[in-house]
Parts: sequence; C-alpha cells; structure tokens
Amino acid sequence: MSDQYGMSTSLDRDFDVTVADVKAALADQGFGIITEIDMQATLRNKLGVEIEPQVILGACNPGFAHQALQAEPSIGLLLPCNVVIRRHGHMTVVEMINPATMTTLTANDEVGKIAGDVSERLGMAMTAVIG
Amino acid sequence: MSDQYGMSTSLDRDFDVTVADVKAALADQGFGIITEIDMQATLRNKLGVEIEPQVILGACNPGFAHQALQAEPSIGLLLPCNVVIRRHGHMTVVEMINPATMTTLTANDEVGKIAGDVSERLGMAMTAVIG
Repeated sequence: MSDQYGMSTSLDRDFDVTVADVKAALADQGFGIITEIDMQATLRNKLGVEIEPQVILGACNPGFAHQALQAEPSIGLLLPCNVVIRRHGHMTVVEMINPATMTTLTANDEVGKIAGDVSERLGMAMTAVIG
Repeated sequence: MSDQYGMSTSLDRDFDVTVADVKAALADQGFGIITEIDMQATLRNKLGVEIEPQVILGACNPGFAHQALQAEPSIGLLLPCNVVIRRHGHMTVVEMINPATMTTLTANDEVGKIAGDVSERLGMAMTAVIG
C-alpha cells in the first residue's frame, strides 16, 4: 500500500477478535462506528464471487467532523475515516486511512489542522490494537 | 470546493426529492447505496448542534469494487464513492467524489483505469440528476 493514503499492520489474530479490538480502540479515542460494510458478503451477494473476510468501518469523531464541516462545507465527500480489517492468508490486516489525504485533496489549512488531530488519535488506536 | 476531489451542482429542488433523484440516477448507473449517514441527525444526537440537512451516501458498483480490490488490496480505505446531498440556504447541493482521487492517492495504473470508468458513470448520474 502506498504510504500516501493509510497505515497498515498485520496481526496473527482471529478476524472477529480483531474487529472487536479495533472497535474498542477507536471508541477509546472518541470515534463511533457510523457505517460498517461487509465486503465479503456484499460481493458474494451481488456478484457470486468469494473474497477473504473484509469489513470497512466508517469511524467518526463527531466533534472533529463538525469542525471540518465548518472549515470545508464539502468535506462530507471525505468522511468518515475508513478503517479496513481483512483476512490475508493466516494473518489479519488492519488498515486506517491517513487523514492527511484530506489535507492533500482539499488544500485547506484549517482542515489540515483537524486532520493532524484525527491522525494522532487514529495512530493511538492503531498502537492499542497492536497491543 | 477544490476540483481535486469532487464535482458539485446546486439545485433549486426540495431536499428529500433530490435524495430520491440521486439514488435513482446512481442505480441507473449500477451503483447500490451501501451506506447512508444522516449528518444532521448524527451531530444533533452526539453534540447537540444544528446543521442544515445533509446526508452522505456510499455508492458502490460491486463489479468495479471487486476489480479495484484485486488491483489494490487496500483500496477499501477509499471505498465506497461518497455522494453528499446537503441543504444550503434555499438550494440543495449535490456533490460526488472524484474517483481520480483514488488514482492520485494509490499511484496504481490499474486503479486509474477503473477510476476512469467509475468517474464516467458518476458523471452520467450527475447529468441525469441535473435533468
């Protein structure tokens, strides 16, 4: 993965346990999960293809989201912060979007400051998941 | 809004009617709505603040999503394609993510080709919404 858009770790841990760990770590940093996409089920149902287990969580810290909307009215296009948990062979991969992508794409200094704060919290959540 | 991350139009049309129009136009282009975030309700419930009506739809064309996952295993971080409908004064604003952001962020040529196809379909959906 390009470092430009996310951070990633690979864990020797059960998939479902990891999903629960990630949700708990995000909650500890003030992020609620406002969307959850089961990619494996979606692609099975829609296309009849099989992929390894994968969920995309949409993590949202309401305070930061509100600040970002005030700074950049169109920022909803880049919300929430995606967190992917996916099985890859015998490992479970956890990936979190790099909020700096919002800064790159919006070129808005105020968004950049908020993205920095969000990034710090996601980093702490990732550290907690790794344990 | 920076052209780098989305396309936008402003319509003299009822908010709820516009949401329905956008969903229909996306369906016509093969996009299902796999997430829907009511930002107004979320911020009211979590923070007690009031913003104008705003929803963030997550639009997913399963065939393109599957191709993208095969080309770039971490692409879930940038899925689904966000479509924002928000009230702004007497107008309803419709915004769609520019899938070229995926190309910019991943620097993956195969993703670039898929993003080009997705972009064309989102553009046709936007044209249909404008009517």
